[in-house]
Amino acid sequence: MKILILNGPNLNLLGTREPSIYGNINFSDFLIELKAKFPKAQIEHFQSNREGDLIDKLHEVGFFYDGIVFNAGAYSHTSIALADAIKAIATQVVEVHISNTAQRESYRHHSFLSAVCRGTITGFGLNSYTLGVQSFYE
Amino acid sequence: MKILILNGPNLNLLGTREPSIYGNINFSDFLIELKAKFPKAQIEHFQSNREGDLIDKLHEVGFFYDGIVFNAGAYSHTSIALADAIKAIATQVVEVHISNTAQRESYRHHSFLSAVCRGTITGFGLNSYTLGVQSFYE
Amino acid sequence: MKILILNGPNLNLLGTREPSIYGNINFSDFLIELKAKFPKAQIEHFQSNREGDLIDKLHEVGFFYDGIVFNAGAYSHTSIALADAIKAIATQVVEVHISNTAQRESYRHHSFLSAVCRGTITGFGLNSYTLGVQSFYE
Amino acid sequence: MKILILNGPNLNLLGTREPSIYGNINFSDFLIELKAKFPKAQIEHFQSNREGDLIDKLHEVGFFYDGIVFNAGAYSHTSIALADAIKAIATQVVEVHISNTAQRESYRHHSFLSAVCRGTITGFGLNSYTLGVQSFYE
Amino acid sequence: MKILILNGPNLNLLGTREPSIYGNINFSDFLIELKAKFPKAQIEHFQSNREGDLIDKLHEVGFFYDGIVFNAGAYSHTSIALADAIKAIATQVVEVHISNTAQRESYRHHSFLSAVCRGTITGFGLNSYTLGVQSFYE
Amino acid sequence: MKILILNGPNLNLLGTREPSIYGNINFSDFLIELKAKFPKAQIEHFQSNREGDLIDKLHEVGFFYDGIVFNAGAYSHTSIALADAIKAIATQVVEVHISNTAQRESYRHHSFLSAVCRGTITGFGLNSYTLGVQSFYE
Amino acid sequence: MKILILNGPNLNLLGTREPSIYGNINFSDFLIELKAKFPKAQIEHFQSNREGDLIDKLHEVGFFYDGIVFNAGAYSHTSIALADAIKAIATQVVEVHISNTAQRESYRHHSFLSAVCRGTITGFGLNSYTLGVQSFYE
Amino acid sequence: MKILILNGPNLNLLGTREPSIYGNINFSDFLIELKAKFPKAQIEHFQSNREGDLIDKLHEVGFFYDGIVFNAGAYSHTSIALADAIKAIATQVVEVHISNTAQRESYRHHSFLSAVCRGTITGFGLNSYTLGVQSFYE
Amino acid sequence: MKILILNGPNLNLLGTREPSIYGNINFSDFLIELKAKFPKAQIEHFQSNREGDLIDKLHEVGFFYDGIVFNAGAYSHTSIALADAIKAIATQVVEVHISNTAQRESYRHHSFLSAVCRGTITGFGLNSYTLGVQSFYE
Amino acid sequence: MKILILNGPNLNLLGTREPSIYGNINFSDFLIELKAKFPKAQIEHFQSNREGDLIDKLHEVGFFYDGIVFNAGAYSHTSIALADAIKAIATQVVEVHISNTAQRESYRHHSFLSAVCRGTITGFGLNSYTLGVQSFYE
Amino acid sequence: MKILILNGPNLNLLGTREPSIYGNINFSDFLIELKAKFPKAQIEHFQSNREGDLIDKLHEVGFFYDGIVFNAGAYSHTSIALADAIKAIATQVVEVHISNTAQRESYRHHSFLSAVCRGTITGFGLNSYTLGVQSFYE
Amino acid sequence: MKILILNGPNLNLLGTREPSIYGNINFSDFLIELKAKFPKAQIEHFQSNREGDLIDKLHEVGFFYDGIVFNAGAYSHTSIALADAIKAIATQVVEVHISNTAQRESYRHHSFLSAVCRGTITGFGLNSYTLGVQSFYE
Repeated sequence: MKILILNGPNLNLLGTREPSIYGNINFSDFLIELKAKFPKAQIEHFQSNREGDLIDKLHEVGFFYDGIVFNAGAYSHTSIALADAIKAIATQVVEVHISNTAQRESYRHHSFLSAVCRGTITGFGLNSYTLGVQSFYE
Repeated sequence: MKILILNGPNLNLLGTREPSIYGNINFSDFLIELKAKFPKAQIEHFQSNREGDLIDKLHEVGFFYDGIVFNAGAYSHTSIALADAIKAIATQVVEVHISNTAQRESYRHHSFLSAVCRGTITGFGLNSYTLGVQSFYE
Repeated sequence: MKILILNGPNLNLLGTREPSIYGNINFSDFLIELKAKFPKAQIEHFQSNREGDLIDKLHEVGFFYDGIVFNAGAYSHTSIALADAIKAIATQVVEVHISNTAQRESYRHHSFLSAVCRGTITGFGLNSYTLGVQSFYE
Repeated sequence: MKILILNGPNLNLLGTREPSIYGNINFSDFLIELKAKFPKAQIEHFQSNREGDLIDKLHEVGFFYDGIVFNAGAYSHTSIALADAIKAIATQVVEVHISNTAQRESYRHHSFLSAVCRGTITGFGLNSYTLGVQSFYE
Repeated sequence: MKILILNGPNLNLLGTREPSIYGNINFSDFLIELKAKFPKAQIEHFQSNREGDLIDKLHEVGFFYDGIVFNAGAYSHTSIALADAIKAIATQVVEVHISNTAQRESYRHHSFLSAVCRGTITGFGLNSYTLGVQSFYE
Repeated sequence: MKILILNGPNLNLLGTREPSIYGNINFSDFLIELKAKFPKAQIEHFQSNREGDLIDKLHEVGFFYDGIVFNAGAYSHTSIALADAIKAIATQVVEVHISNTAQRESYRHHSFLSAVCRGTITGFGLNSYTLGVQSFYE
Repeated sequence: MKILILNGPNLNLLGTREPSIYGNINFSDFLIELKAKFPKAQIEHFQSNREGDLIDKLHEVGFFYDGIVFNAGAYSHTSIALADAIKAIATQVVEVHISNTAQRESYRHHSFLSAVCRGTITGFGLNSYTLGVQSFYE
Repeated sequence: MKILILNGPNLNLLGTREPSIYGNINFSDFLIELKAKFPKAQIEHFQSNREGDLIDKLHEVGFFYDGIVFNAGAYSHTSIALADAIKAIATQVVEVHISNTAQRESYRHHSFLSAVCRGTITGFGLNSYTLGVQSFYE
Repeated sequence: MKILILNGPNLNLLGTREPSIYGNINFSDFLIELKAKFPKAQIEHFQSNREGDLIDKLHEVGFFYDGIVFNAGAYSHTSIALADAIKAIATQVVEVHISNTAQRESYRHHSFLSAVCRGTITGFGLNSYTLGVQSFYE
Repeated sequence: MKILILNGPNLNLLGTREPSIYGNINFSDFLIELKAKFPKAQIEHFQSNREGDLIDKLHEVGFFYDGIVFNAGAYSHTSIALADAIKAIATQVVEVHISNTAQRESYRHHSFLSAVCRGTITGFGLNSYTLGVQSFYE
Repeated sequence: MKILILNGPNLNLLGTREPSIYGNINFSDFLIELKAKFPKAQIEHFQSNREGDLIDKLHEVGFFYDGIVFNAGAYSHTSIALADAIKAIATQVVEVHISNTAQRESYRHHSFLSAVCRGTITGFGLNSYTLGVQSFYE
Repeated sequence: MKILILNGPNLNLLGTREPSIYGNINFSDFLIELKAKFPKAQIEHFQSNREGDLIDKLHEVGFFYDGIVFNAGAYSHTSIALADAIKAIATQVVEVHISNTAQRESYRHHSFLSAVCRGTITGFGLNSYTLGVQSFYE
């Protein structure tokens, strides 16, 4: 199974950015653990702070991969273009969030992506990614 | 690990109710599969159509169990009392939904429970429960 | 034809409660008159102040009766769970209200039940029930 | 008993217009059946696509007839002038709708007429008219 | 000075319609008094329940008369077309209301006409018309 | 007849303040003209930039004068206390505005005073005061 | 090809009404030019200030013409009845506006007609009509 | 004087639940103190997590007791049925809240009960109950 | 114990102002009774129709008195400055209202003061003050 | 005449993306047809999924080209920056949409671009582009 | 250069009031420092808790001073009268706030003054005043 | 002191774009003046029309520079991702705007950046940047 972990804006700072909300683990360290948990999966990772790069990446892999685990960060709440990209491709996308967005600012309570994703997993820290990958095995 | 699967209103009809949305698998059949996947967990199940019964159950197990996987159904969108019950107990609760609520009526887009739960898993069919139980192992 | 008259919260006080709005006729007296008007119908009556009891009753009769005439009272405006129960069953439900809800507080202007019922009859006093039963003969 | 069936805009196309919503029965055919059901009533019918004609008709019959069964169609949702006309006359008016307006566009969920009518009957197809006439006999 | 008193829907029933709100004086009786108060003015009166007739009348006199005193009744709150007609003509229009609209239903609190009229006079009973005519002398 | 002209905040600057909106006539000059038009009336004038002074003045004259013509300026849109003062007194108050408030910022479209005044006169420049005084003679 | 140009309220004043917004060309002059551009089309024109007349016209030609180019003016923003008429007929309707409605008052930003028309053309002056006719040739 | 202290959902956990908000005194301990302060009053206590039980209790005592001090907890913000029950009975009800609800989530700022209760006492900790009982002596 | 009773706008008219809402007892008469009920308390009274005077008074006593019972009248609903003053001082303030504000105009349903006061007591007539003073003894 | 066709996010997938909404014609095939229809025009095409690229392109050609036909896709509904870019340049821009946006999700009903474009053409499939180019010839 | 520092309600308590938000420096101490930084400027200071005093002060200096640095405190969010006063005078006004109002309660996010001031400086502690004075030198 | 001037979309057109709003000075000319005013500061400038570039730049300098003066242009009103980037870095950011945004379209009245910046300076033309730099010296 071929799975893309797709990370949006500011997630490159994971581990240094607001550790009380996002934890203090570096994403590349976490990725090693994640791959270890799913030895048969081919897990790739792509991060960009650019909405357009994320759209391009969805287009690029969205007809070949078996699944996409997508944390669009702040773009979840503002980007209809990303939602359109998800609808436009064939691969199923699972939306994940590290923090419990319902506990935060009201503008984080709505995601344009939820309605076009297969499902949403929110609030489990980095384990939201693990559960996202796991969901393709259920 | 001792885990309660808590189901709210109309979920007793699972398998017969609106199969295009909720699938056609009976919950007790699913429960057998679920227990098989987590042989070491002690998984119990309780369903009620009564908001008060659900509050009582949360109070009853909420200081002893290791986790609660809660699908409050329609009460998710209307019950502050259930949210208060979750805040009042010690056991962590994971909110799950079978359907992708973001694709449905706008009054299903907000859940009073999300902000007081550890996390939320939405849209994976009955596998939302599986991922919910799995989350206590991550 | 087998028909259930289902009454929600506070309707047990009919005849004593706010007579300027709800009239001063006792519901059991009215029921005798109603049955006399439809001698061939088998009309049953159930009232509860509990949302969960009403859901249970809908589940119980909702695959066998020919029709349900439902005055959910205040729950009409707050209960998504009752709406879900109506959608989950096979028997058609007609929503009735004694008073003209459009003349009252704005929170009584919306009913979660209307969209899932066959039709709605509002404002005819106790005759709303009569017209509700009649509707199953048209 | 002298009763006016008053029909608003586009209801002259009944039978040809959007049959999945409004059915495929011509209103004049239905009127024959309706009169047969109430042999003692003197039932008249008036239809106009003009808000002003409907106001004039309400003024004209509104101090002499025993009842008016009014389907104002789209004007229900936009015309305060029709509501004022109903308040200004002595004859009681019953509001009817063929389709279940609560299942349709949100701008059809509110009717300016409901609060000034004796009652409202919605969603029973052409039988909404039958129940409307019946209501004057209860 | 040539002045048109223009009356909208239901104002033909003045004197019989809801006397507690609109008073019990017939408009033609009032008109005699009004003309007596302004002996030099040429005061004409036109009433219609039809939005289109009112637009036509505005177009017809709106380039020749010295002033228009307009009580658009319920159309004040719903008709952008009447506001456009007022903007399209050369004669100044004064908006009048018999009742104090701010004390009534919230949908009567906004008038599309106010912003395109020279001024607005509200709440003085039939004297609102008198003050409206008077305003063209100030 | 004893009438108070009551002016609220910034109206002391009339004639110098924003002449394109409020005109360039000094209020004391206007007052001389106004008194000349109503030789039998005893017209007094009071202006204050203080909400509390205006309340006090209403209390002071509100049980003895025959009428109050009140331009509360910006306080019209923010002061419930002034509305309460008007309700608390016996003398009738007429609300006037120099400019057409419906053409200006949306926060000037609502006045807390309108519903508790006898009537409202808006948009006639300083003649709004003249019509306000006139209204006590109709 | 048989095409109706349908014009709503106040468009009879085109050329004299608010020339800075609507231009100063008379519609009948424009119509001559328009017909010259589409020599093979049979273009008819109907204008009314009456909502009901416009509904009637849509009903009348709506099963025979090849296309309708409709500028409903102010009724675009208030008339559900016109939208229902468009849905009820077979001929496709193209909505046009002379001015750029998005630059004007907020109540002109929504049109009830857009969702039931084939398409919408806004802001090109009288050329909006030309493009509307052209659209039936693409 | 016969007074009922009526407690709604989650108040059975008082003393253990969120002590920073609700304090750490057990309600039965408090009740002893309360009874000592009002030795002549006959004070009873009933708590339930069920909306329907609370309605039943109001019906049961609401025609015989001298007063009811009601903390409906979360149901205050969601239950129209409880408000209807209070309106339906003869005994006066005083609404109390332990915490200062205005300082908490916005969904706790509105109570359906306030408008149908004699008065409301909010924010004094358990002394809100004491003041509630005291209010029946003033 | 040193307690200030602080009264806002229009409360100087108590006894004459809208007796159906505020009762017909003069506040100074009530004050004598109140002092008699709390013989050990040193109760002072200050009333002003000026927002600024009320702020000054709060500043003046707010670091020395044991408690303030504050009925800010209409300013409760509009004054952030008063709320800031309460937050700025050391003495605790209890908010009281004579009438049941939840039964009145919607703009009286929100108070800027509630969230910064120790607690709120609403709807008990003049006894709201008595309970307010009493609250400092609990 | 030099015209730029500017396409926003996901429009590179035209022909494969959601064909029921956007049709199944590839944009480069369409472009050939379009150029054939306007043999004298010099038509260029630029597509990007990046908001910034689109801004840059507008800046680059916006002082030299004769017209821009712009389908900003999802960015129409979220990008104030693109609207600012259009206002900042000299070339007129025509907004086009393939689908009838008024029939789709409510968040597609508003476009930040409409008010700063010369005009808008919506709902004609790929012919919206043709009409957009045509508009520069009228 | 002659500059007025104008301070609104509760700013007399600076240094003692909520030091975590407003700091613990007394304003008169700060004023000495400020004057030292701008030795050539003639800086005056006026503070009042009264809206009317602030309006009067603006009128008094607003045609003679070179600049006004105004912290209207809570009145910024509620006073249209102060905004009108600023518009009515000739001297330019700069709005300053000590705290970052965007981080605080939502009712502090809007200021009626911003749109009528030359500019706004928010969140720099007492240095907001320094930058305000500085702005008149740029 | 090392300070970055960061400019968002369309600010590269400064001097040519809408001069009535943004002035006609070229930013590089202004920068020379600015550097002259702060000879000891090391001032760098970066502009991009790309949200992602701006995020990257914030990440790049945000742990080393002493201050950032950021005019995010239109992205201020739409970009949660930029706000997150500001929160994620260590360097303090001051938000500046050239125009008085409170005087412009309502969608420019809210900035996602204000609450995460040290302060905001709005409306002083290019001097907003000067004051922004100055703020790091106070």
